[in-house]
Amino acid sequence: MPLLVVGSVALDSVETPTAKRDDILGGSAVFFSYAASYFTPVKLVGVVGEDWPHEYTEMLQQRNIDTAGLEVRAGAKTFRWRGKYQPNMNDRDTLEVHLNVFGEFDPVLSEEFRQSKFVFLANGAPVVQAKVLDQVTDAKLTVADTMDLWIREHNDDLLALLKRIDGLVLNDSEAKLLTGEENLVLAGRKVRELGPRFVIIKKGEHGAMFFSEDETYVLPAYPTDEVVDPTGAGDSFAGGMMGYLAEQDNFEPATLKRALAHGILVASFNVEDFSLDRMQKIDRDDIARRMEKYQKMLLF
Amino acid sequence: MPLLVVGSVALDSVETPTAKRDDILGGSAVFFSYAASYFTPVKLVGVVGEDWPHEYTEMLQQRNIDTAGLEVRAGAKTFRWRGKYQPNMNDRDTLEVHLNVFGEFDPVLSEEFRQSKFVFLANGAPVVQAKVLDQVTDAKLTVADTMDLWIREHNDDLLALLKRIDGLVLNDSEAKLLTGEENLVLAGRKVRELGPRFVIIKKGEHGAMFFSEDETYVLPAYPTDEVVDPTGAGDSFAGGMMGYLAEQDNFEPATLKRALAHGILVASFNVEDFSLDRMQKIDRDDIARRMEKYQKMLLF
Repeated sequence: MPLLVVGSVALDSVETPTAKRDDILGGSAVFFSYAASYFTPVKLVGVVGEDWPHEYTEMLQQRNIDTAGLEVRAGAKTFRWRGKYQPNMNDRDTLEVHLNVFGEFDPVLSEEFRQSKFVFLANGAPVVQAKVLDQVTDAKLTVADTMDLWIREHNDDLLALLKRIDGLVLNDSEAKLLTGEENLVLAGRKVRELGPRFVIIKKGEHGAMFFSEDETYVLPAYPTDEVVDPTGAGDSFAGGMMGYLAEQDNFEPATLKRALAHGILVASFNVEDFSLDRMQKIDRDDIARRMEKYQKMLLF
Repeated sequence: MPLLVVGSVALDSVETPTAKRDDILGGSAVFFSYAASYFTPVKLVGVVGEDWPHEYTEMLQQRNIDTAGLEVRAGAKTFRWRGKYQPNMNDRDTLEVHLNVFGEFDPVLSEEFRQSKFVFLANGAPVVQAKVLDQVTDAKLTVADTMDLWIREHNDDLLALLKRIDGLVLNDSEAKLLTGEENLVLAGRKVRELGPRFVIIKKGEHGAMFFSEDETYVLPAYPTDEVVDPTGAGDSFAGGMMGYLAEQDNFEPATLKRALAHGILVASFNVEDFSLDRMQKIDRDDIARRMEKYQKMLLF
């Protein structure tokens, strides 16, 4: 079942305690698409400027990602982000953000893309996410991501969006900020009361928590000593999860839990190198092999 | 198989964002003993002053904890700790510490206690922990806890101890401090290189990690919305784990993993009220029922 993602496509500059990369492929929709592509065909919607290297588009196309919805706008510049990770590789400082063409992002979907049954609204302004929702009226499952900026400065728009989506993915600090609740179990439940049928709290190196009406659970991250660049881990997580759900074409509780596990594992590969460098070297079998280890780890 | 624990016995004063308790039963050896007592008889070694309420000793004795090694020293005062938790219930400030009689703790074990096969050296000065080791020459399994104070100020003593014990339990920030390594997988492995055959890193609300020569794994905490007082969670974890190992009378890899899970679950009860208040209301069946839920949570 094809999966639609709408979100940012960016050129990232990343500095870690041991290395540095400039203008590498990034953006929420990119990390999401690539992660999901191991499981299902993906339709990507985004916008870039004329400085966008065409080989990046080709790299996505080679992974069964439909880039017909990636607009290359003449006279415009691509969204750029520059960040620096602290020694703990968890906290990071944003040094520069240039929204550029992404600041005017107003996605209009093709007739074909509007038919999508599985839809992910990657991190973006809630009003833009809502406009996408207006267009995908046949969707079976709509899931969104968000961030502190929208929680703080576009709270009403975000609350309106939450009443319209099936699932929300956000990280632990965002869940606390949105609910004013420090205990993550309580925070997750409170987010759910705002609308979504299920909520997933990403905890970075500590895994992810799931909340639905009937279930609350947590799965740990896959323990890795190879954390080279965590950029895009959350989007890869969401991509692995939604990709798996679209592949299975259902979102029963048991499928959702397996999807969460797949998201965790795909993200564990993503952090092992900059940009999509590690992801380009793995296939579905690598994910399956790590899944076997992961399931064995959780069995006692 | 009886289990020996040597450590602090204290009167705690605890302040959380919503409540406050004074002079409640605390101390590493107390939380450990009580948690272990669900699984195996426990022999406790510690020292208190004449201000120690005798009913606390009786409370321990009712749980099959042998308090023959709990010295009540005349003219002395019990170890007191006063702390205040931050709103996140994870970080805490120590407001007062009065070591009192615990500052002169020099445990001399009875002939019977020296025969112990399972031994836990609760958090204390490494030289004192080493003196206990000198006395338990028949031990099959020796495990120690430590803290930032000893890592910083008694590093040589601690390093000497690490070469003599089978297992070390410490929390995430202590593991980072001891190794200078921010990645917990790398930190755990480096701690193991310092001597212990296995190392367990406690991550509080995020669970615990295990490291041996052949295995690296992580188990999440049991998700609870009832975090009333986290004091003693780490000691309860160690008590549940060591209690289970002593009960099973082996420490094969599969037993160790089940022991880790039991430690996590016992700790999840402990945090649900002040001091031992929650623990006094549960029995082995409650732990078994939560274990069933926990195992189901990790199965997909």
